[in-house]
Amino acid sequence: MSDEVSILITGAAGFTGQEACRHFRKKGWNVKAVVRETSFVSEGIHIIQCDLTDRKAVERLMKMEKPTFLLHLAGVNSVQLSWKDPVTTMEANLLSTVYLLDSVRTSSPSTKIVLVGSALQYDPELKEKPHHPYALSKTMQIQVARHWADLFNLEIVLAKPTNLIGPGPSSGICALLAKHVVEMERNKKTAKFTITNFALKRDFLDVRDAVGAYETLFLFGERNRTYDIATGRLVTIRAIVDEMQSLTSVTNFVNDKKSVGMEVMKPIDVSELRKLGWLPNYSLHQSLNDTLEYYRCQNQ
Amino acid sequence: MSDEVSILITGAAGFTGQEACRHFRKKGWNVKAVVRETSFVSEGIHIIQCDLTDRKAVERLMKMEKPTFLLHLAGVNSVQLSWKDPVTTMEANLLSTVYLLDSVRTSSPSTKIVLVGSALQYDPELKEKPHHPYALSKTMQIQVARHWADLFNLEIVLAKPTNLIGPGPSSGICALLAKHVVEMERNKKTAKFTITNFALKRDFLDVRDAVGAYETLFLFGERNRTYDIATGRLVTIRAIVDEMQSLTSVTNFVNDKKSVGMEVMKPIDVSELRKLGWLPNYSLHQSLNDTLEYYRCQNQ
Repeated sequence: MSDEVSILITGAAGFTGQEACRHFRKKGWNVKAVVRETSFVSEGIHIIQCDLTDRKAVERLMKMEKPTFLLHLAGVNSVQLSWKDPVTTMEANLLSTVYLLDSVRTSSPSTKIVLVGSALQYDPELKEKPHHPYALSKTMQIQVARHWADLFNLEIVLAKPTNLIGPGPSSGICALLAKHVVEMERNKKTAKFTITNFALKRDFLDVRDAVGAYETLFLFGERNRTYDIATGRLVTIRAIVDEMQSLTSVTNFVNDKKSVGMEVMKPIDVSELRKLGWLPNYSLHQSLNDTLEYYRCQNQ
Repeated sequence: MSDEVSILITGAAGFTGQEACRHFRKKGWNVKAVVRETSFVSEGIHIIQCDLTDRKAVERLMKMEKPTFLLHLAGVNSVQLSWKDPVTTMEANLLSTVYLLDSVRTSSPSTKIVLVGSALQYDPELKEKPHHPYALSKTMQIQVARHWADLFNLEIVLAKPTNLIGPGPSSGICALLAKHVVEMERNKKTAKFTITNFALKRDFLDVRDAVGAYETLFLFGERNRTYDIATGRLVTIRAIVDEMQSLTSVTNFVNDKKSVGMEVMKPIDVSELRKLGWLPNYSLHQSLNDTLEYYRCQNQ
């Protein structure tokens, strides 16, 4: 069993975490899912309860597991919560990362790490400023990882994912819209979903493609390089609504009373990721279809 | 008593902390000295034991004290220790600062803070990299403070002190040299002190002048501005040794077998601090004299 590939996934109960558990289990990897609360279960997955802001607990975890790969997804990712309790956000996103990276350094230095940042992180080299404590916490998390990799020669690859969509417990715009549509399909809701700006453009990537990209980074990602994880294509909210309309019998499910001016956003450059051989498999149509199906299968 | 000026000093048992306690007590301010261990005593100073890496303890501290000023000096400042235990360095320098700043935000938002960085911090905007975990911890400490000040509108002034010298428990080159000279004066040591590079230039400021500068920053420092705290004048190690020679009867107390190439260092620009009216009071001669006297008065 010594050449069995093992992967430790933190934040395994989250939207991306659940998909990562499924994905790497299908690959035949030995998946160990780290969760904060033990209520999470997933078939064929070894569940480990650990508070990642507890230094001793993290040290014990890594001493015990010594995984081939570490996918660090755990953290607080709510901008709203970061305003309410910035310290908890800093602990969950920055401190837990320091503990994890250092436990890898001391107990399992050959573990290759994929650290998942955020589209909302900013670039301190460009003198950008964070708009909220969440952005600050993610930016500092990435900085600490980059420098820990350099100072201690660790195998860390940095992933910067765009907006992830698809089936599963997401709180993104597509999930909220799909949930709303399904509730209208069930005649539970009559009020329309309010879109503040139809012209807004975002890069929406299916979570299954994102997890595929993380696999690519484990296998081929360069140490201490940051990879944008995205389709490379911007899509308007209007296109999302139109696509969703083609997948449901309910009509008039949105209104746009509060439309505001359009921001200019450049497409995300995904050439570095493509060079490693990764290509997305899911069309926007497929992603939205599967998102609707996910909510249609949920208990009413 | 409501318009009494109070100052909370963290790291009060350290080299700068002890001088700060004396200085602000002399000014008639109500000095509260925060220390990790209760063995520290200082006349007329209120001592508070608090582990600054304990979130709840820091919150209780600030709720209770609500000081006019907060001088944050506490932290680990050993490069060597930061290699051995980088996590403790990050906790002591970064996490404690997050806890302190946030407790000010929630319990005492009108408190004006002087946060003391390090000459070894680097500038992420210049794409500089830390040479050790200590530099990383101090840089991230300063970044978090700058952004906390912006995001939550706190009164934070950033101080970046040079090498501080003068009487007191320092582990800097001048203190080590003075200690060595005093031991030679007592015939306790015959081996010479090894200087690796006589041509090395540094800006040495008396700790009493540094504390005077912190007072200036409390009174006149601009929110979220970084002030270099230094003389503005570079001095070679040769000049330090010559000056020390003029203050002792022992001769030949140094050797320089391992001299290495000279680095180029630009003088530190102290114009921003000078604009606020600060001027140093102690000459190099006086500082070194008082350092020698400090060690001469220590128990043998």
